[in-house]
Amino acid sequence: MKKKAVFYHAGCPVCVSAEQSVLAALDRNRFDVEVVHLGTAKGRVSEAEKLGIKSVPALSLDSQIFHINFGANLSDLK
Amino acid sequence: MKKKAVFYHAGCPVCVSAEQSVLAALDRNRFDVEVVHLGTAKGRVSEAEKLGIKSVPALSLDSQIFHINFGANLSDLK
Repeated sequence: MKKKAVFYHAGCPVCVSAEQSVLAALDRNRFDVEVVHLGTAKGRVSEAEKLGIKSVPALSLDSQIFHINFGANLSDLK
Repeated sequence: MKKKAVFYHAGCPVCVSAEQSVLAALDRNRFDVEVVHLGTAKGRVSEAEKLGIKSVPALSLDSQIFHINFGANLSDLK
């Protein structure tokens, strides 16, 4: 069974770079990948917040959160 | 031809977590992975610095640098 990887971003240049490199490097045979644009999917900002996400881009791997570089604060996306 | 992934760390708990999750999730069919412990391989701190690494853990993917969460400043490892 595949694990879940969720990439949260806001369309910023730092986010795009992380998506194109880090997310693209994940092993898709082991991870189901979902990409969430918090700028458009405003309803999921609270989900990200509950997961412990402080800024984007962030990657949730099997519910563990990794902030990758810094694009924008989550609080600026509300 | 495989691309190169280099994971720079300092043995800190945040580093270990990133190594066990993010690094472990990379597609090894596409990336050759190297792990560099800057606490023991002091000679490579300057290499990391030249790459633009400010803190560990950090992941270099095909020479692009991604800081993952925050464990320690590079300057504290000199």
